[in-house]
Amino acid sequence: MKIALIPFNPIVGDIRGNIKKMEKILEKLVIQKIDLAVFPELAVCGYPPRDLLDKPAFVEDNQKAVTKLAKKSKKIKILTGCVDLIDTKNSKKIFNAAAYLCDGEIKQIAHKTLLPTYDVFDEDRYFSASKSTCYININNKKFGITICEDLWFSHFHKYKIDPVKELTRQGIDYLINISASPFEEGKLSTRIDLIKNTARKNNIPLFYVNQTGGNDGIIFDGGAVFADNHGDLHALSQRFNETPLIIDTNSIPEKISRKKPNSCEEIIDALALGVHDYTKKTGFKKVLLGLSGGIDSALTAALAVKALGNENVIGVSMPSIFSSEGSITDAEKLAENLNIELLHIPIKPMFDCFLNNLSPHFKNKKQDVTEENLQARIRGCILMALSNKHGYLLLTTGNKSELAVGYCTLYGDMCGALAVISDVFKTKIYQLSKYINRHNEIIPSGSITKPPSAELKYNQTDQDSLPEYHILDGILKLYIEDHKGFYEIIQSGFSKETVYKIIQLVDRTEYKRKQAACGLKISKKAFGEGRRIPIVQNYIPLDHCAI
Amino acid sequence: MKIALIPFNPIVGDIRGNIKKMEKILEKLVIQKIDLAVFPELAVCGYPPRDLLDKPAFVEDNQKAVTKLAKKSKKIKILTGCVDLIDTKNSKKIFNAAAYLCDGEIKQIAHKTLLPTYDVFDEDRYFSASKSTCYININNKKFGITICEDLWFSHFHKYKIDPVKELTRQGIDYLINISASPFEEGKLSTRIDLIKNTARKNNIPLFYVNQTGGNDGIIFDGGAVFADNHGDLHALSQRFNETPLIIDTNSIPEKISRKKPNSCEEIIDALALGVHDYTKKTGFKKVLLGLSGGIDSALTAALAVKALGNENVIGVSMPSIFSSEGSITDAEKLAENLNIELLHIPIKPMFDCFLNNLSPHFKNKKQDVTEENLQARIRGCILMALSNKHGYLLLTTGNKSELAVGYCTLYGDMCGALAVISDVFKTKIYQLSKYINRHNEIIPSGSITKPPSAELKYNQTDQDSLPEYHILDGILKLYIEDHKGFYEIIQSGFSKETVYKIIQLVDRTEYKRKQAACGLKISKKAFGEGRRIPIVQNYIPLDHCAI
Repeated sequence: MKIALIPFNPIVGDIRGNIKKMEKILEKLVIQKIDLAVFPELAVCGYPPRDLLDKPAFVEDNQKAVTKLAKKSKKIKILTGCVDLIDTKNSKKIFNAAAYLCDGEIKQIAHKTLLPTYDVFDEDRYFSASKSTCYININNKKFGITICEDLWFSHFHKYKIDPVKELTRQGIDYLINISASPFEEGKLSTRIDLIKNTARKNNIPLFYVNQTGGNDGIIFDGGAVFADNHGDLHALSQRFNETPLIIDTNSIPEKISRKKPNSCEEIIDALALGVHDYTKKTGFKKVLLGLSGGIDSALTAALAVKALGNENVIGVSMPSIFSSEGSITDAEKLAENLNIELLHIPIKPMFDCFLNNLSPHFKNKKQDVTEENLQARIRGCILMALSNKHGYLLLTTGNKSELAVGYCTLYGDMCGALAVISDVFKTKIYQLSKYINRHNEIIPSGSITKPPSAELKYNQTDQDSLPEYHILDGILKLYIEDHKGFYEIIQSGFSKETVYKIIQLVDRTEYKRKQAACGLKISKKAFGEGRRIPIVQNYIPLDHCAI
Repeated sequence: MKIALIPFNPIVGDIRGNIKKMEKILEKLVIQKIDLAVFPELAVCGYPPRDLLDKPAFVEDNQKAVTKLAKKSKKIKILTGCVDLIDTKNSKKIFNAAAYLCDGEIKQIAHKTLLPTYDVFDEDRYFSASKSTCYININNKKFGITICEDLWFSHFHKYKIDPVKELTRQGIDYLINISASPFEEGKLSTRIDLIKNTARKNNIPLFYVNQTGGNDGIIFDGGAVFADNHGDLHALSQRFNETPLIIDTNSIPEKISRKKPNSCEEIIDALALGVHDYTKKTGFKKVLLGLSGGIDSALTAALAVKALGNENVIGVSMPSIFSSEGSITDAEKLAENLNIELLHIPIKPMFDCFLNNLSPHFKNKKQDVTEENLQARIRGCILMALSNKHGYLLLTTGNKSELAVGYCTLYGDMCGALAVISDVFKTKIYQLSKYINRHNEIIPSGSITKPPSAELKYNQTDQDSLPEYHILDGILKLYIEDHKGFYEIIQSGFSKETVYKIIQLVDRTEYKRKQAACGLKISKKAFGEGRRIPIVQNYIPLDHCAI
């Protein structure tokens, strides 16, 4: 039996378009004499549909689409993720489901048992949990069906039911898992270990397929896997694209060993996919970004070119009187290296004009952060005007370290539809930039070697007000990604004063992040949908400030 | 026995401050010889703490604080909402709890059974559900303890356990419910009906207390209630403040009938509380807002004055060449009526300067929405500069109708920390404004009677591109608040073309709302935390566009 695992890249909500695309894929697979085509979790509507699930019409349309897709199952059996509704007198229950389509009909529907409700996941908000497990029969073989989190029982300690164990008890021959498992740096190893261990522990061969593509800030790295009942890996598809992995159960490929992906390479691939899909799925062709001559905007530009091609990326240099000559030439050099269009719009005339008109209302107050922010906001106005006039999507270029401590200007450099590197710490920005330059210089060396600076006043550098980035990032990682408290972070070797200052900065600048652009997620805890900290809150650890 | 129900107003996360405030309240109640003081749900840490609960140190600090508070229970018994942790070898479970403190100790802890996970609620994300119910014994009387949603079993069809019924079976004498139930227009009636019906059906007297105050965009209207076992109301506290309701079980007050609150009055009270608490809890004193002469900014200014006093509200008039004379004088008149400071900063010089510097990059393209947005963004820059320079909090003045269809400029009129009326439809804006003017003209009649316009080009009115507001709001309410689909909305009597256009506008402008300021919630479905629609999505109802 030939099984095709398709790391499908849907558009969320686009039921009509997704089904059409699935039908095209199926036509090709029929020619290849595939018996069973397997699409990922919620392939019909895309993952995550979020509150679209609150619309009864949306749920109904999902069901109608599956009925339509079933017509294609005369020539090829189909297993696909979809939304299911069970409508009884007393209640309407919605399930995250897998529909088995065969002989032109919906033969069986399996429901997801374990519903992730943490980080970016809100499945308890929408779905009812299945109380039973389900297998399908094909050619006298039993295929147990699981959906994403159903496989992750052993990874968490909070679930009470192990759906894989339940299925194994029922004497299945194979296990299938359809997933929509978001990319995170290094997560592939965790995922593959889980697949291998589950296959081995349950003595069951396992087919796995994951969604591909960027949906808002979440990037799905795709990938399909086949592991045998000893937990040995026999096939592993490419990541970040939709190429099906085809396994013939009568002729299993040889065992393979996997290489751990290069961390820089996988992050760059993920971010480029995120930029590509956000741009294309919203119907844009070209993107625009400010080029300061600094490393953040340089890296963002390089990623955008990788995603969309140099002809679709426009850089804008907007020097102020505080911009160094080196910054201006570095921006030019970058544009030259990437072969992208570069516009020059110095901001001095607008800055002077604002200051003249505001001065009567500044009441002889000293220069302060106001003037710095104003320059950033003038740049925001320019970029948005170009975006509006030409229909370019604006990318924002801030990194995770500065977004964490609020070292960025709301409505200024934070303007933009997509924050490409807002989940990448500054120390990692350097690593990625050096990786991009590994063969030849793309990001100008000046952008990498000069001390980071916002260049919003004379002789300013980031380290005037922030600790060195390796210290800052160390603290931020513990605080934001690992949920460590004040006391625990100090125990990791950081000074009390620095930790307290940084924690305060993070907490006090939540209001900026609430209005930040959608950011691409590459860590286990990115700012945005998956991190829900109140704006107005005053938690000061009791360790620090005895009650 | 004298019971005090305290509609406490905590600051989220401020465990130290909340406990201090509780202690002060308790000192007064001791003097009044109160036996039992009852604080609302999660009073110790404030509701909703959201992902602060992901920090183990935060959960521990909650527990430490309850231990400290227990010391105050030698002179008065205390029941308070708090976070509880049960830490076993295999798992750490966090509960939304009620701690009964007596004789200087924590005597008992009850856990919440029904965990709301919809709209702004994410309790399944954080808490484990209690499998049992709990009552406390005071003076040989059994008080059943329930927490917020535990009372709402009959209102939804999704819960399997009715905690109140379980407690009634155990032979309790009284029921207590501690809540953090957000304000919504008209919700008080629902809530009181629920309290009365629960008391009557279970034949049990019921004490109810709700949190007060604004936390981010959620406003809690407070209120304490006592209903007897027949479901008759005997006491109902004021809303929107912390005044305790004291009930002596040996001398129950007479039955009362409740008046349905005036809809305009309760919304105005709620929004003023929201503005007040956001401002004060973030440590600001004064607020700033742009005054266009239109009704939205006028209403926002009036609400801000109600919340903070006229001396703490600063208006800024920023006319453009498209502003009518009437608009300028209406802004002046409003400032005069409210007796607030008004700054005049015409935007023409900045607008001209931007256009001069941008024109080489506009490549002879025609004037379009770019120039309109640019004016709004210049105003945003001015307001933010004043906010930065003087430490004023910027209020944004957009209404729900325009935010829904994207009739607003990102980084322009959307600038601000708090969106005061972003959950109020335009039709309701008129009602509220007329209510504010019921005794004397505060909002200039010109602002109310002139056709609504953004005044960003010549002779522009909102109705050039939008249907009449009563039609627009009718469609929006069905689509956004009632989750109705395209077909259902048409069946309500709206034209197919209009409905399709409006739905498309709502869907296509999600990206603006993702970067919108925190908005005060007064409806069952506000934009913001409680509404999670993907930005990049392409759901087109199949009804409209046959698959």
